[in-house]
Amino acid sequence: MDAPNGSQDTEQTLDSQVKAFFDSAPPLQNRNDIIQKLNHFIQLNSLSSENGIGKRIVCVTSGGTTAPLEQRCVRYVDNFSSGHRGATSTEYFLKAGYAVIFLYRRGSFQPFCRSLPDDPLLECFEATEGLNIQVREAYSKAVKTAIVDHHAAVDSGLLLKLPFSTIFEYLQMLQIISKPMKDIGPRAMFYLAAAVSDFYVPWKDMVEHKIQSGSHILDVKLVPVPKMLSVLRKDWAPLAFCISFKLETDSNILLNKARGALEKYSMHAVVANELSTRKEQVVVVTIDDKITVQRDKSKADDDVENPLIKLLSQRHSAYIEDSNRMR
Amino acid sequence: MDAPNGSQDTEQTLDSQVKAFFDSAPPLQNRNDIIQKLNHFIQLNSLSSENGIGKRIVCVTSGGTTAPLEQRCVRYVDNFSSGHRGATSTEYFLKAGYAVIFLYRRGSFQPFCRSLPDDPLLECFEATEGLNIQVREAYSKAVKTAIVDHHAAVDSGLLLKLPFSTIFEYLQMLQIISKPMKDIGPRAMFYLAAAVSDFYVPWKDMVEHKIQSGSHILDVKLVPVPKMLSVLRKDWAPLAFCISFKLETDSNILLNKARGALEKYSMHAVVANELSTRKEQVVVVTIDDKITVQRDKSKADDDVENPLIKLLSQRHSAYIEDSNRMR
Repeated sequence: MDAPNGSQDTEQTLDSQVKAFFDSAPPLQNRNDIIQKLNHFIQLNSLSSENGIGKRIVCVTSGGTTAPLEQRCVRYVDNFSSGHRGATSTEYFLKAGYAVIFLYRRGSFQPFCRSLPDDPLLECFEATEGLNIQVREAYSKAVKTAIVDHHAAVDSGLLLKLPFSTIFEYLQMLQIISKPMKDIGPRAMFYLAAAVSDFYVPWKDMVEHKIQSGSHILDVKLVPVPKMLSVLRKDWAPLAFCISFKLETDSNILLNKARGALEKYSMHAVVANELSTRKEQVVVVTIDDKITVQRDKSKADDDVENPLIKLLSQRHSAYIEDSNRMR
Repeated sequence: MDAPNGSQDTEQTLDSQVKAFFDSAPPLQNRNDIIQKLNHFIQLNSLSSENGIGKRIVCVTSGGTTAPLEQRCVRYVDNFSSGHRGATSTEYFLKAGYAVIFLYRRGSFQPFCRSLPDDPLLECFEATEGLNIQVREAYSKAVKTAIVDHHAAVDSGLLLKLPFSTIFEYLQMLQIISKPMKDIGPRAMFYLAAAVSDFYVPWKDMVEHKIQSGSHILDVKLVPVPKMLSVLRKDWAPLAFCISFKLETDSNILLNKARGALEKYSMHAVVANELSTRKEQVVVVTIDDKITVQRDKSKADDDVENPLIKLLSQRHSAYIEDSNRMR
């Protein structure tokens, strides 16, 4: 196991920041319903396997989180992310034999749906002369994939979809997911592709009613969101295989930032991506490796997530074997 | 005509704020394409009418605007609005014989689609045993309405849809739309249901790259968005019939705020709505009236927009007659 990083003082500060965050968060709606679905999903997939040791389960997080500025939320700060990486990776994880918990931002890309236009119902369908509905020829393949493959994954119990909007919902749900994931030990993976807010306004500091406009300047003060990656690794699910992401627009600082995150949060790998080239290549940074992964450009429809998930799946298998040997 | 409100000083300040806003805005993409579509739409509908004087044309704005915090936009402040009011009103304006320019936030509700679930493609369709696609029984009516009625409105040239995301895009597009609308005089209506940001960060004050996280507090200073309603009424389209909206969570201040907006921006009517009851009733505030409009509760599928658009359409007709008499 990786050693926890930082002094005892830092840990105490982090613990109190984490406590303050969760104490300040509004209660999660449907909490019991989510727990029930999760337990059922993990139980089902822990048992079902050809070799009798249960499937590997990955929690893929996807899309951006919002930080509300008012309790009756009209205004919020949003961290934009389409969710393309998370949705695509989910498809390849399913292909690689994983069961996937897809923790996604409402309205972000869904697995098997990324070839669809923005407003698929209105764009992909048309009315016939007899006023029946039919798929437009140009979209017939994309629509079929979306509906057939997506429903097959959900219906067969291999894909559990859980939506969030705010940073409060996201972190509360991640904590809830980590509980049953902890029980399956090293077979659990966290693939943290969501763009999580770095800053938030504590719930108690927010005004209740809508902020009134006027001729003044609006001064919004946001405090840092506690570094939950550390807590996930140290307390929530210490045996799970953890992958985080680093996205920068400035390639000069990217690899150093990724290396820094790897060490600071004791991740097993950090996927470094630069905004402008992120669909072509990424660099997987581990403690003793820096592996550039590229999509196969000779195939028009290959994705960088194809070799990326293959690599991570291999690393995860090796990690499970190592963990089993050490028991 | 209503008299412009405020002293010469205030006007000069507003003019300089408006100039600063547009000078600071990033150039609108597809500007020429939008202008071409608009001119074609307004020309078509100005000519086509049974009585030879052309249709009435309304610009319905809908959904919330975003204020970016970074030039390469990852983070932004969002003003939440589902766009339900704008989408529903568009359906009733079409029924009342208007041609509609629907200026909407990407991803917000679309006309004829409000009975659909969040993710209609995945929710409303299923695969048959032969792997064909069919509409789920429970959604067959909603899907048919969405596709048949929506496409009929667009294909017959009565509905022009123009999407925006940022406050910069929204206000630039509103200005562009007002140009050909000015030419049709009092037959033009602006129905401003969008939830427009009150504050923004001027483009030149933004950092280019992603704001780095850390242990510090993020202090975001936003300046007021200039009151474009005044400019729309005074300069952009002085003869158009103008409706704005006032939404408050606090019912005690609502009617005074609505009355204030009516006078300050010389609107022809302000629709006052309270967050918790806005789908049941609204109050239409005019210079000499305060009319409560309620949906017909004896009909399960009646909307408050039904009597609201009937009332506004009558007022608009009276306004056109008055304007014609005064010529």
